[in-house]
Amino acid sequence: MPGDSHLTEHMLSREELLRGRFLHVVRDTVRLPDGASATREFVLHPGAVAVVPLTDDGRIVLERQYRHATGQVMIEIPAGKLDAGESALVCGQRELLEETGYAAREWAYAFTTYPTVAYSNEAIQVWFARGLTAGPQRLDPGEFLEVFTATPEDFLAWCRDGTIVDAKTLASALWIQNVLAGAWKLDWQASSSEP
Amino acid sequence: MPGDSHLTEHMLSREELLRGRFLHVVRDTVRLPDGASATREFVLHPGAVAVVPLTDDGRIVLERQYRHATGQVMIEIPAGKLDAGESALVCGQRELLEETGYAAREWAYAFTTYPTVAYSNEAIQVWFARGLTAGPQRLDPGEFLEVFTATPEDFLAWCRDGTIVDAKTLASALWIQNVLAGAWKLDWQASSSEP
Repeated sequence: MPGDSHLTEHMLSREELLRGRFLHVVRDTVRLPDGASATREFVLHPGAVAVVPLTDDGRIVLERQYRHATGQVMIEIPAGKLDAGESALVCGQRELLEETGYAAREWAYAFTTYPTVAYSNEAIQVWFARGLTAGPQRLDPGEFLEVFTATPEDFLAWCRDGTIVDAKTLASALWIQNVLAGAWKLDWQASSSEP
Repeated sequence: MPGDSHLTEHMLSREELLRGRFLHVVRDTVRLPDGASATREFVLHPGAVAVVPLTDDGRIVLERQYRHATGQVMIEIPAGKLDAGESALVCGQRELLEETGYAAREWAYAFTTYPTVAYSNEAIQVWFARGLTAGPQRLDPGEFLEVFTATPEDFLAWCRDGTIVDAKTLASALWIQNVLAGAWKLDWQASSSEP
């Protein structure tokens, strides 16, 4: 935004800190607004897509998955990383199909969220999906997750009582509440391509 | 939860991958539910507290801060990392005071969120604060951020139109909407200690 020079940092150089099997971490040196320099360490991430799948009888498709970093089974909406060159919609269709077995007739982009602004460039696009057809899960080897459905009332109660703690799922809850109440409108499009 | 053995992973060993100035990254080897093994790389994080500060005239205190990893100025609720041994409430009081200059007479715990379940153990506790008294910001050297207030209507419109993308702030919006509508109740407590 113009006029943000009192806040904006400018990149001076980048150093690679870690190329793991999964995580890629860099340290950038930046020039601060006052001319001093500082370092910023963060994860380079390809971006991700998450899906809010709505069944014809008004339920939400959810997953239960053990997340080692948090040490617990988490309830989450389906989500996955973008493959190189993949569009967000195709990624959402692919992840929904692989993780839950569902294909969806209609899709609507809702919002984008950055889960960890302090130390990752990951952006998650969140799409809604409806007109679901069930099929078999196609999990990757070593992937274990359980698919179930919940009413919006139960889902929102779980956001309130701490049963749901995953940030992308909680952020989506604001949209779920307002879309299902008719307060926020989505721009639905027919699914043109099978992923 | 009992009965989750078909999902749960068990840690076998840990390897340190990175001890940066800011980021600490490990690689754990885990035993999967089917007995195979896999590795999980993630950031070790002390945890954080975020605050939804409400002014007496019904506005929300927000920050604008450049986030290098995302390449943009973000609108966020005040937040910061827990210091060693610090309670969440004291951390919230400290961060609110340092970043915005406000002290709050009453505090209420709302919820906890994990921003990045796939690659960080960070948990953020979100507290509401009211009965605000303004004072001077006490920013750390090299910290540049702008404090402003918004009506709940503007805040929710920004969550909808993509002006706000930070996940902890979007997750808090569900609480802000439901608390301000009177649908969800908070358990307010008087601030007993100055941080």
